[in-house]
Amino acid sequence: MRNFISVSDIGPLDRAVAEALEVKANRFAYKHLGENRTLMMIFFNSSLRTRLSTQKAALNLGMNVIVLDVNQGAWKLETERGVIMDGDKPEHLLEAIPVMGCYCDIIGVRSFARFESKEDDYQEKVINQFIRYSERPVFSMEAATRHPLQSFADLITIEEHKTVDRPKIVMTWAPHPKALPQAVPNSFAEWMNATDYDFVITHPRGYELDPRFVGNARVEYDQDKALAGADFVYAKNWSAFADPDYGKVLSTDRSWTVTAEKMALTNNAFFMHCLPVRRNMIVSDDVIEGPRSLVIPEAANREISAQVVLKRMLEDL
Amino acid sequence: MRNFISVSDIGPLDRAVAEALEVKANRFAYKHLGENRTLMMIFFNSSLRTRLSTQKAALNLGMNVIVLDVNQGAWKLETERGVIMDGDKPEHLLEAIPVMGCYCDIIGVRSFARFESKEDDYQEKVINQFIRYSERPVFSMEAATRHPLQSFADLITIEEHKTVDRPKIVMTWAPHPKALPQAVPNSFAEWMNATDYDFVITHPRGYELDPRFVGNARVEYDQDKALAGADFVYAKNWSAFADPDYGKVLSTDRSWTVTAEKMALTNNAFFMHCLPVRRNMIVSDDVIEGPRSLVIPEAANREISAQVVLKRMLEDL
Amino acid sequence: MRNFISVSDIGPLDRAVAEALEVKANRFAYKHLGENRTLMMIFFNSSLRTRLSTQKAALNLGMNVIVLDVNQGAWKLETERGVIMDGDKPEHLLEAIPVMGCYCDIIGVRSFARFESKEDDYQEKVINQFIRYSERPVFSMEAATRHPLQSFADLITIEEHKTVDRPKIVMTWAPHPKALPQAVPNSFAEWMNATDYDFVITHPRGYELDPRFVGNARVEYDQDKALAGADFVYAKNWSAFADPDYGKVLSTDRSWTVTAEKMALTNNAFFMHCLPVRRNMIVSDDVIEGPRSLVIPEAANREISAQVVLKRMLEDL
Repeated sequence: MRNFISVSDIGPLDRAVAEALEVKANRFAYKHLGENRTLMMIFFNSSLRTRLSTQKAALNLGMNVIVLDVNQGAWKLETERGVIMDGDKPEHLLEAIPVMGCYCDIIGVRSFARFESKEDDYQEKVINQFIRYSERPVFSMEAATRHPLQSFADLITIEEHKTVDRPKIVMTWAPHPKALPQAVPNSFAEWMNATDYDFVITHPRGYELDPRFVGNARVEYDQDKALAGADFVYAKNWSAFADPDYGKVLSTDRSWTVTAEKMALTNNAFFMHCLPVRRNMIVSDDVIEGPRSLVIPEAANREISAQVVLKRMLEDL
Repeated sequence: MRNFISVSDIGPLDRAVAEALEVKANRFAYKHLGENRTLMMIFFNSSLRTRLSTQKAALNLGMNVIVLDVNQGAWKLETERGVIMDGDKPEHLLEAIPVMGCYCDIIGVRSFARFESKEDDYQEKVINQFIRYSERPVFSMEAATRHPLQSFADLITIEEHKTVDRPKIVMTWAPHPKALPQAVPNSFAEWMNATDYDFVITHPRGYELDPRFVGNARVEYDQDKALAGADFVYAKNWSAFADPDYGKVLSTDRSWTVTAEKMALTNNAFFMHCLPVRRNMIVSDDVIEGPRSLVIPEAANREISAQVVLKRMLEDL
Repeated sequence: MRNFISVSDIGPLDRAVAEALEVKANRFAYKHLGENRTLMMIFFNSSLRTRLSTQKAALNLGMNVIVLDVNQGAWKLETERGVIMDGDKPEHLLEAIPVMGCYCDIIGVRSFARFESKEDDYQEKVINQFIRYSERPVFSMEAATRHPLQSFADLITIEEHKTVDRPKIVMTWAPHPKALPQAVPNSFAEWMNATDYDFVITHPRGYELDPRFVGNARVEYDQDKALAGADFVYAKNWSAFADPDYGKVLSTDRSWTVTAEKMALTNNAFFMHCLPVRRNMIVSDDVIEGPRSLVIPEAANREISAQVVLKRMLEDL
């Protein structure tokens, strides 16, 4: 694997899941692959799970890891070409990227949507510059429009817990006080559409996702109807995608919060969320703490999804 | 050893000191113990010595180390249950703790007293949540009421330098411009009370420590009297413990500063302080730079106390 | 090598370059040297290349690396002796330095000129305290007056690209919106003066560097004349050195920007800059992106210069 940006980079999902389960059972079996190899993790945004799980995955593989928080301890980076750089940003991405590439073998990048320009966000301007200029394999640690390490971990978690061949998966919007990117729901939709699960998306009107990610999923505006018979409930907030409301909060309607009453509508569904989660906005305390909550196993599988991706990249170096 | 929070976790002190001296003589002899083991160091507060010495100890033992500064590069954490999380904290400790536990074998936590609630502080709310929810062995890198890695390093340092079987140890309060927690003096008292040293505490009226930590120590309000015949002077500032002054600065009286004149009252005592130290508030330049100052050997022994603790935890994994 | 602060610490340059090229061809051949050895990198200022390349060099040598950003996650440090420390700095360098030394084998320090006192800057007050008090070998990761790892990497880059025995090297001042230290131009001059290259410095009047660094270099105030026949153009901004203008910006004259027209005056010269660079202030987009730009190879050689320095330090431990 050269780069890992979307579901299309991982190949057949059944093989990817099988490899994940094998790695999970024997995390240190591939330590020789990472010898004398350095991972550089570059964060333009905050991170807990991604920061920790990706480091752990790289250490499992015997790699060295260098972590760079771009906004702490490094120089602020200009991203536009042609600018007279007389402001507060002393370095340009066009130099910084190949320089970072010099000192490592593989690059992970986190760069969220900025909501300044929908076009810039949906063209994945930052991570695509890394792919173009770094001369190194690049993987997404959440980019503007996708979070594939999360979606892969979600898939592994569903495969570990499903009790029917073709479970019903419901991704439901839930309220949140601030505007969040669409990366996680876009990506989850993309991965679910690549399986043969019964996949339903539910959200208030106005929160339609980019049709390229919705694909063949069923969209249902009535949350209660959507939840009926669900085997897995995947909650997530996102801000509006459609113009002219791109990046805006249109609703904080707490009737969309996933509560025990909502879960009672399902087929004793598992509850999933990528974390971090706003309790009692997205989900009630009792649901997230309950016996059907998978939020911790999901997070634990982040180490596994990252390790499969790094392992494949190392094998192809 | 499962957790390391207080002196009661370390067992017989003579065995702990003997093990420390053995580790100090041969730091890399236990490198096999840490193979494929990851330490996660979680800081809610600033750190120099603890950050560096604990990393070094883990590296001596062949461990991988992941450092997380919660307030830099990660998400702010909510600590109260039942809250509607619509404010500035996007993640709850109840998710963050088990997630952190997923990616490591041992957790170190630094979480100071906040002085918002004496009850929360003295119940060690934060570190106890890590013990309860992380499913990993947890050790204190200074919690709200104790700093056991420091006290253990202090004990090693005294054992290395004492010239009589039962030295007189005087812990003296000294002035400081800001309110400091009681963790270091509490902890030092707890450890000294577990030895058979002659242990005296001196401070201005109003600075009485929690009686559970004072134990059988003699308390003397006249600093000069306390210092008479001392073999070791352990200086430290702390804020008031007793209600209604909990967490307050009652005095910045510089007649309590440890000066050459004060040290002249002692039995040519060694000077100790855990660092960081405010020069010419806590101690004069000449005393801290003088030949009887042990502040650097004390700090160097932080690597050793951390290594004994990690070694024992690794042995019991 | 005990310390690495200036060109005089590295010995004969031809041997240093030969060792660099050998290390570059076989980066992992000396991994045994760093076993059980810890590098501590201490940053008082921001860093991208130095942070990453020095870590990478240490990892190539099998060392452990601990990174400390003094202004993030550690305590603020007092640097003046005799102060009553009742302000915002809870720790003194005189304790912090030997403490840092306790936990490592080699120390790297970045501490820029502060422009508060020319005397303090040019006496290299901070890094000299590390040399004096740390009891460890110390190397500069850019100090107040020199940046020797950069100059060494520049020399390697010139040696790799020169096509005549004695190339003409022109260091030219270029405009920049903020006051920058003289460390890079001082250091580059010092290293060039230690070769037999034809070395010319050009800058507007008022920007004369310290004569101890200028040495026997030719100084030419007409940039066009200086550039004539150049084989290498080394662009850099610096603030005034001479009193009473020390540390001031005297000009932001963009007629000194290195453009294609300026480069046309040279002998098809290579363009060099240490980075970070302000595009269209220091250099135009087309020059820095053009085929004669060496900025990325220069940066890549930072790993090599650091590795030679660390290798020699390890050999002499």
